[in-house]
Amino acid sequence: MIFYLSGRLVDTNGAPGDAAIDLTDRGLTLGDGVFETMAVRGAQVTHLAAHLARLHRGLDVLGFEAPVDDGEIGHALEHVVQANAITEGVLRLTLTRGPAPRGLAGPEKPSPSLIITGATQDLDLGRPVAAIIATCTRRNEHSPLSRIKSLNYLDNILAVREARQQGADEALLLNGAGNLVSASAANLFAVIDGELVTPPASDGVLEGVMRAEVLRVLGGTERTLTPGDLARASEVFLTNSLSIRPLTKVDGVEIGTGPITEQAQKLVC
Amino acid sequence: MIFYLSGRLVDTNGAPGDAAIDLTDRGLTLGDGVFETMAVRGAQVTHLAAHLARLHRGLDVLGFEAPVDDGEIGHALEHVVQANAITEGVLRLTLTRGPAPRGLAGPEKPSPSLIITGATQDLDLGRPVAAIIATCTRRNEHSPLSRIKSLNYLDNILAVREARQQGADEALLLNGAGNLVSASAANLFAVIDGELVTPPASDGVLEGVMRAEVLRVLGGTERTLTPGDLARASEVFLTNSLSIRPLTKVDGVEIGTGPITEQAQKLVC
Repeated sequence: MIFYLSGRLVDTNGAPGDAAIDLTDRGLTLGDGVFETMAVRGAQVTHLAAHLARLHRGLDVLGFEAPVDDGEIGHALEHVVQANAITEGVLRLTLTRGPAPRGLAGPEKPSPSLIITGATQDLDLGRPVAAIIATCTRRNEHSPLSRIKSLNYLDNILAVREARQQGADEALLLNGAGNLVSASAANLFAVIDGELVTPPASDGVLEGVMRAEVLRVLGGTERTLTPGDLARASEVFLTNSLSIRPLTKVDGVEIGTGPITEQAQKLVC
Repeated sequence: MIFYLSGRLVDTNGAPGDAAIDLTDRGLTLGDGVFETMAVRGAQVTHLAAHLARLHRGLDVLGFEAPVDDGEIGHALEHVVQANAITEGVLRLTLTRGPAPRGLAGPEKPSPSLIITGATQDLDLGRPVAAIIATCTRRNEHSPLSRIKSLNYLDNILAVREARQQGADEALLLNGAGNLVSASAANLFAVIDGELVTPPASDGVLEGVMRAEVLRVLGGTERTLTPGDLARASEVFLTNSLSIRPLTKVDGVEIGTGPITEQAQKLVC
């Protein structure tokens, strides 16, 4: 694979050290950074402006800036797409506060690391999902981290691992108040009494790029959802930048699918 | 610096790639790992058994194992102490789930990365601390991550950065219920009505090795503390593996210090 690392394209088949990051990078030592996952379709990065806007919202929370401007980031993404000849696939952009000596607060003038990796991948990911509601952990609606795409992904990892142990594909996460937030790697939509609804950011939701696109095109209401609301839903679906998938089972209980899910799925074709 | 990386000692003055970690390492991409920070005194690693026990409790939560046994980890730590001629200083052991392809759940058979870094550092860190109570974020007592030393350290980073912006040294964090948990990098003790108290793990506390040592030697009670309790405290102090420091100011209000803090401080001499 050919990837982009802080200013240059690097081939992992080159010298081993080229494909590596400093051991003191705060992305590694403290999870101090943000990332974006973007779909590539027709050799084009999709929803680039929305991804960059969210990246900057995350950086505002963490208090550091990207080492290059959005134009350069866009070029770097294109370079990785071209260098790896990706027609359909996935890009990941990671931005950390960079290498630093010991200390939690971080350096006053950081040297952020920008890493872009990409690979060809089949994005026909509309298949139905069976989920559990995670019991091992909850999202923290009291932290701004619940609303940015930071490198602190362990709660989501614990949740999806619980799901897999129970033979499910995905996990839905509750927040501290016991309300539904999202899946481990996707936003949650439900159709209840004919109305399309999704939990609001204030409940601890990472506002996905595809979530915004669904709300923009199909409309819908942001309001708190409880686990009990799922039993009343005529359709439930999960959205992320790569896919829109019907959620057809939660904790073993079947949920129907229907026309609004189908309409939403057209957004990723 | 000479450090230990997954089975070998490496000198950062060697080939650049030697001092680096794979870009696909889940420690970097998802914060998927744990760490320990240990004091070195008299060229010896302090409280090694307690640190290793906590490391394993963290690994149990994350669901992977160290690539080598405790004996080998101990030898590797000693090697780093000797190779860097550390008499007084700090070691950091980082253990990640290792390199992996895309996907949150992680590989069934991971290849964890073990990284040990160390440096000489003056550990005479008993100086008084001024803190704020962080308003930007809270700890998540509903997540097992609040009780292990994972690489997901961003809430603590946000809190200490808020403190520094306000001219304070440290931040105390509340949990979702609004109770006191700890400082950004230390446990919290208070002497109230003559009784030594510290918040219980169930409030979202990382159970520090020095916290356990203080409870073992000085006694004390684990119970929920509210911000209002600090106003009634005759002494407040912060403990971590490197230091025990009196907390003499919170949100601008002075707190006294006294004999129990002094007794505790003898534990790190």
